[in-house]
Amino acid sequence: MSLINISYRTNYLHTYFKTTAVIPDTNENNYRTLWLLHGYTGDDSAWIRHTNIEKLAREYNTAVIMPEARNAFYTDSNFIPYYSYFVDELIPKIQSLLPVSTHKRDTAIAGSSMGGYGALKIGFKNPKIFGKVAALSPITDIEHFRNNPSCPMAPETFDTIFDSPEKIKVNQPYNIFSENNSKQKVLTICGTDDYMYEDNLDFKNFMTEKLASNYTWKSVKGDHSWNTWTANIENVFKWIQ
Amino acid sequence: MSLINISYRTNYLHTYFKTTAVIPDTNENNYRTLWLLHGYTGDDSAWIRHTNIEKLAREYNTAVIMPEARNAFYTDSNFIPYYSYFVDELIPKIQSLLPVSTHKRDTAIAGSSMGGYGALKIGFKNPKIFGKVAALSPITDIEHFRNNPSCPMAPETFDTIFDSPEKIKVNQPYNIFSENNSKQKVLTICGTDDYMYEDNLDFKNFMTEKLASNYTWKSVKGDHSWNTWTANIENVFKWIQ
Amino acid sequence: MSLINISYRTNYLHTYFKTTAVIPDTNENNYRTLWLLHGYTGDDSAWIRHTNIEKLAREYNTAVIMPEARNAFYTDSNFIPYYSYFVDELIPKIQSLLPVSTHKRDTAIAGSSMGGYGALKIGFKNPKIFGKVAALSPITDIEHFRNNPSCPMAPETFDTIFDSPEKIKVNQPYNIFSENNSKQKVLTICGTDDYMYEDNLDFKNFMTEKLASNYTWKSVKGDHSWNTWTANIENVFKWIQ
Amino acid sequence: MSLINISYRTNYLHTYFKTTAVIPDTNENNYRTLWLLHGYTGDDSAWIRHTNIEKLAREYNTAVIMPEARNAFYTDSNFIPYYSYFVDELIPKIQSLLPVSTHKRDTAIAGSSMGGYGALKIGFKNPKIFGKVAALSPITDIEHFRNNPSCPMAPETFDTIFDSPEKIKVNQPYNIFSENNSKQKVLTICGTDDYMYEDNLDFKNFMTEKLASNYTWKSVKGDHSWNTWTANIENVFKWIQ
Repeated sequence: MSLINISYRTNYLHTYFKTTAVIPDTNENNYRTLWLLHGYTGDDSAWIRHTNIEKLAREYNTAVIMPEARNAFYTDSNFIPYYSYFVDELIPKIQSLLPVSTHKRDTAIAGSSMGGYGALKIGFKNPKIFGKVAALSPITDIEHFRNNPSCPMAPETFDTIFDSPEKIKVNQPYNIFSENNSKQKVLTICGTDDYMYEDNLDFKNFMTEKLASNYTWKSVKGDHSWNTWTANIENVFKWIQ
Repeated sequence: MSLINISYRTNYLHTYFKTTAVIPDTNENNYRTLWLLHGYTGDDSAWIRHTNIEKLAREYNTAVIMPEARNAFYTDSNFIPYYSYFVDELIPKIQSLLPVSTHKRDTAIAGSSMGGYGALKIGFKNPKIFGKVAALSPITDIEHFRNNPSCPMAPETFDTIFDSPEKIKVNQPYNIFSENNSKQKVLTICGTDDYMYEDNLDFKNFMTEKLASNYTWKSVKGDHSWNTWTANIENVFKWIQ
Repeated sequence: MSLINISYRTNYLHTYFKTTAVIPDTNENNYRTLWLLHGYTGDDSAWIRHTNIEKLAREYNTAVIMPEARNAFYTDSNFIPYYSYFVDELIPKIQSLLPVSTHKRDTAIAGSSMGGYGALKIGFKNPKIFGKVAALSPITDIEHFRNNPSCPMAPETFDTIFDSPEKIKVNQPYNIFSENNSKQKVLTICGTDDYMYEDNLDFKNFMTEKLASNYTWKSVKGDHSWNTWTANIENVFKWIQ
Repeated sequence: MSLINISYRTNYLHTYFKTTAVIPDTNENNYRTLWLLHGYTGDDSAWIRHTNIEKLAREYNTAVIMPEARNAFYTDSNFIPYYSYFVDELIPKIQSLLPVSTHKRDTAIAGSSMGGYGALKIGFKNPKIFGKVAALSPITDIEHFRNNPSCPMAPETFDTIFDSPEKIKVNQPYNIFSENNSKQKVLTICGTDDYMYEDNLDFKNFMTEKLASNYTWKSVKGDHSWNTWTANIENVFKWIQ
């Protein structure tokens, strides 16, 4: 098992961004690969520090790529073009550096909370790269999120990224899905005590109608915290096999 | 010699920011301390990777604190309140974690390029904390910097931080100095081939008039690059003794 | 919460050894401190990667210091004087660098497996430093360990460290305890499926007779693995309060 | 430019060993590769911290792999089978993880001091892997080194690795070369104030006779220190093009 930290000076973001990766020991050239995104306040070490990703990577023989996003919401903003960086620069860079899969059949994306939003967005917009998309407690409606009293992000910070009604609209997971109408397999998981559980139920209904058997929903015990994601991340590894 | 990396989840910035520190081996409680700021595109590892800071820290028995700033320009913006974080959260945090000086007599701040700007700004505004301020190739006029054809920062990115003429004005080093009128010792160094050399000469004239013998100017060979800062950072260690 | 990595060039070991530390956010000068030792094959990141130490450190407001030992068995050998390094160099170094307690009342040592052995040994021999000693699945009889068919360490590697019957004898936890006869509080925990469970029962009987109410024993479910230590490390944090 | 840290749990050494790598940005599959070894007291970060390896890697478009060796002298000992680990486990592991060359034409090995010894030894014994071997201030006679009053290594530590006259003999660079009689290109560099300069002259005479034009010798200014290696490492990058 190799734990790898990459500090890469990006041309898109004009500074160093980090990626943490876990690579199993079977010395393959193209590991089944899970891109795993952190939530608001996290960084590339979040999944390593909160859950036992290394054990799961070994048991499921899966490479795990955990990019740093800071609080950029996996979105292009005036401050940093994070989405473009992720898709146009980071993915090819990691594929050139590490023995990760380059085939959508063996490439999945997942995340929790803001990272769940990122997984839905990046996954839906790039069906040729990601064959499977999983989200734990995702933000499924960014406008509801902004206005939710439990939201950890200050509205004015949210507004620096999503700075117009139009920008909110095109960045809603519903609209991204409809725009691309991809036929990926999708899994969403949410705890019944999550403050965004109702939003997740709405999204479940939407996805069930759109994807039918390609969509899987899991309602679990738990709130919007690492306790829930720690207890359920293994479900994601199982589901992508 | 201890090389220390701190990853701290800040309440101001709502995510993890890193600080790299070098602490000598004389086991003191209050080392003479240099806060050393990186430039645009750098991070907390920049000075370690480009120059031999550890050797200088040992030879001059000085603790060196190198905070990560990303491209926040050491300034409060809508996106992140970096300046407030630095002064109100990071400085007390580091002083509570590491055996750095808490007396202005033994506390200096320095940096290169955008970090030189940060040193001038944070230093001038906090004369009770920093007894000495040194800047290598600093940005001394942020408006000239924005409009300079050699500027590495896109104007629209600059404008997300400095988003009005008033904000530019209050953040000009000249005005910050005049506002606070501190009587610290100040050193600026600039290479004659630097694309901001003229700006540095203007600033030299201003500071000479204001500070007289408390101000030191060094015109050196070199352009706006790590070659110049590597060749001249030892001058900063000498000057703060 | 600060996650800190220290790379320190030791005079005793003639190279860099690392220490990982977690420091809570209450900005104290002398945190209650737990020195937490890793087992065979581990390093200073083991406890961070396998368990949620940061959460426990925060909830119990305790600084946690996790030194790298490699496979040195917390023992002076011809190859490296690890025990002497730990006691004479590392402890004062960390106490000079970080806001850890220097009073035995607030200083505990713990570890699992080989780290449990290390905790018993370093704790028993230094009762003026460590007021409490806790061991999860410790090696309580190093000779039995060497000869146990489940032992992960090659006998010839064991023999490079413990290279004579006399050296084994003076390094047995029983003898170290009797030699120093300290009156610390001691906790040992072992899973009923551990291949050293019988050894731990013998040690329990010995400690019960010697320490009476100062000794606590917990027999738990589990084998000799991180599953057991992850499930029980919180007991150590509770017990040292 | 990517700066990569790999922490890999080795089956040979039964714990985690680190490797630091620098990979250029031209997204190749098989970069020209320099394996660069540290000296006594160093670790995998030594070359990064003391010299500007990243700049050289970029300018010469060369991947640089810097493995951690601790003080194992690149040699199999009772304590750790470091040489076997390096050749049989680390090289294939790195070749499976990173886009390094697997062709001897584009694969070189170099190092300074104990790392220079390691480069000569590993290079000479593996001519099918390494087409070029470079050594800065290498230890060319390990017995002289052991007995040299300037030697930084305690003789008793040396003797734990090289524990018989026979073991010293088979590990002398002269004998390793003669045993394998490889026809690689070899470069050695030594400063005239180095305390092993005489040994290096003897080695130069030996290599000149054996390799003729395949051997290059550079006598430079400097002593046995990073000043010399910093000033001359670029010569190695030039020579391997």
